[in-house]
Amino acid sequence: MTDAIKPPRGVSRRGLLTGGAVAAGGALAGGAAIAAARPDDSGRPGDPIPVAQVGGAVEPFHGGRQSGVTTEPQAHAAFVAFTLKPGTDRASLGRMLRLLSDDAARLTQGRPSLADTEPELGLLPARLTVTFGFGPGLYAAAGRADRRTPSVADLPAFRIDRLQPRWSGGDLLLQICADDPLTVAHAQRVLVKDSRPFASVRWVQQGFRRAAGAEPGRTQRNLFGQLDGTANPKPGAPADTAVWVTDGPDWLRDSTTLVVRRISMNLETWDLLGRTDREVAVGRRLDTGAPLTGAAEHDEPDFAALGPDGLTVIPDFSHLTRAHVTDDRLKILRRPYNYDGVPTAEGHADSGLIFASYQADITRQFLPIQRRLAERDLLNEWTTPIGSAVFAVPPGCPEGGWIGQQVLG
Amino acid sequence: MTDAIKPPRGVSRRGLLTGGAVAAGGALAGGAAIAAARPDDSGRPGDPIPVAQVGGAVEPFHGGRQSGVTTEPQAHAAFVAFTLKPGTDRASLGRMLRLLSDDAARLTQGRPSLADTEPELGLLPARLTVTFGFGPGLYAAAGRADRRTPSVADLPAFRIDRLQPRWSGGDLLLQICADDPLTVAHAQRVLVKDSRPFASVRWVQQGFRRAAGAEPGRTQRNLFGQLDGTANPKPGAPADTAVWVTDGPDWLRDSTTLVVRRISMNLETWDLLGRTDREVAVGRRLDTGAPLTGAAEHDEPDFAALGPDGLTVIPDFSHLTRAHVTDDRLKILRRPYNYDGVPTAEGHADSGLIFASYQADITRQFLPIQRRLAERDLLNEWTTPIGSAVFAVPPGCPEGGWIGQQVLG
Repeated sequence: MTDAIKPPRGVSRRGLLTGGAVAAGGALAGGAAIAAARPDDSGRPGDPIPVAQVGGAVEPFHGGRQSGVTTEPQAHAAFVAFTLKPGTDRASLGRMLRLLSDDAARLTQGRPSLADTEPELGLLPARLTVTFGFGPGLYAAAGRADRRTPSVADLPAFRIDRLQPRWSGGDLLLQICADDPLTVAHAQRVLVKDSRPFASVRWVQQGFRRAAGAEPGRTQRNLFGQLDGTANPKPGAPADTAVWVTDGPDWLRDSTTLVVRRISMNLETWDLLGRTDREVAVGRRLDTGAPLTGAAEHDEPDFAALGPDGLTVIPDFSHLTRAHVTDDRLKILRRPYNYDGVPTAEGHADSGLIFASYQADITRQFLPIQRRLAERDLLNEWTTPIGSAVFAVPPGCPEGGWIGQQVLG
Repeated sequence: MTDAIKPPRGVSRRGLLTGGAVAAGGALAGGAAIAAARPDDSGRPGDPIPVAQVGGAVEPFHGGRQSGVTTEPQAHAAFVAFTLKPGTDRASLGRMLRLLSDDAARLTQGRPSLADTEPELGLLPARLTVTFGFGPGLYAAAGRADRRTPSVADLPAFRIDRLQPRWSGGDLLLQICADDPLTVAHAQRVLVKDSRPFASVRWVQQGFRRAAGAEPGRTQRNLFGQLDGTANPKPGAPADTAVWVTDGPDWLRDSTTLVVRRISMNLETWDLLGRTDREVAVGRRLDTGAPLTGAAEHDEPDFAALGPDGLTVIPDFSHLTRAHVTDDRLKILRRPYNYDGVPTAEGHADSGLIFASYQADITRQFLPIQRRLAERDLLNEWTTPIGSAVFAVPPGCPEGGWIGQQVLG
């Protein structure tokens, strides 16, 4: 039967995006439309046609630092954590990371992976990034405990934690982000499939932010309605050292660390609060995100300002107070995603936040903030950490290289 | 403590989108940017600023026919099915539907619902539509069996079915679609919350297509990489009678029906097939979607064409052959969404299709196609229906009215 069929037109004869034709300069709104070749009926490339901005926009894969960290957050994310299989050693880890790096290098540029079984789903990069994180167990398996970023170790227990193994830990993490959900699904499929000889899937967390173009330039909102990420470090020199390790040996320089925590948000009890009480808990207005002592989102909070009753306007137990960091070098880069699962039969939401923060040093930057929050953040009344994992994010790689080569090499 | 806080600036003082300012004319690419008022620091509305196309685009809620049927499919969907609580009768159903219609009328136009506890999340409509479907049980509860669309009854069992109760049935369905996932999540939250006195959540299916602007004007692809929806009826007169009931009493005229089936797709075995074998199973090329006898997606298939071996080029067992309908009035309007759950530890995908089809008459249009597919569609080897539900989609309502008023009134 199959003899009756003309050979299928290969994907190579379809209009492939020219990889790397555009490196979108951060915000999508600034991205340019790019051209792809349109095949005519003979299968030969014809005139260039414009490819839509959202689908065609490309983020770089190769470079000194990994993408997906300071990259303007895409609309969709899948955080995929793996457990290495017994026997996965340094040599096989190297093979896995070569393969996954090659997959990521292709898919992020709008090209199918080498063995892609659904190559048509690999043609729209939509700013796809694949960011690799190494958990403590990976260094042990590789016999490279000496190259583990020291602060990448299990976090201390916090009294607010109700951690579930199903959302916690992991030897390897792939953070897959794109502005298109089908692009994320396909990349997840390819990367999980190619990891199967070496690792099993430990957990997957899928999340979203506003769609590309829905609210450009705005800080994202979580499902409590709060603006989320206002206090992120500003681009520039101090931010650079807050996020990236800027010196040390080549396996450490240009690396960062990632903390992923799954925070269940109890919308049912939150919704019982009045608006003013919520704003007191947050320390900011819900509409503008302005601190309670200010008028605009990015106004500096005045923690000393007193109200008519002689109490501080921004209370000590507010989330803003507990999370506040004045030294730019000690800030963390929050890059969270919302999750919204299936409600219970009673109609109670399964909603929350995939908290993800990047920082040069977990001990120096993340832990002090987390300790202050765990101690006395009023928001803890309505939120519960149910998952936690930490990863080193090794340096990037040049063309022809692979992520992890400085660590395992 | 709360006395120390100035009264929060109400949402009414923030730049609300002017509801109904734009009714996007089908495809998003044709939508216009709309203006919102920007508050200055005093909280007074200032100059209009452009709101991004994706976030600000609006679909109508009021009208003779419900939106979300012939509406150009949005990127995200939640199908939420409810079971009516014991004691929910015609009067209480009327209260529920008035409330949910009011919620939908506001949210679709970018306005928070009346009791919205996260009003800031209700400001970006992103082409939100909320489409109401009535299952057989709703008519029984309302004592209105006489107004049930006759073809809305449980489907016959098909030998390919492996239906699970957790994805099947339902007295009431809300199909919530928007180009922004946060908009869908918020609308789902509001509608589920307001339904709680009357109904419990039976199942929720969340799905996606390409992001708005990612691939405008193209037929969507499913996770097998197939183009999905090529054979949909073209807009115009014959399509009109295929989708809508165009005569009869007021509770039937301008109604339609909806079949929702959850189709698990076995990517693991599908990926074992060669490309040619897959194209034979589908009857179309995977790259262009052209029938195996043609060159372009919308070419008419030639079922009589023979190959060199004397067999038909498009085999009798192909999906294209089994699903093909020549009479425009007997076509169904497919409006499917992809789903992609969490893979197993072994890395096997939980992927599939939320098949959703609209047709004037299930018995006359959907069932013959489904019988042909169940009998001998080769694609059945790699797909399994695991959920099934049918709903009448009653006529729309004018401003001040509510969905279902012609059925229950």
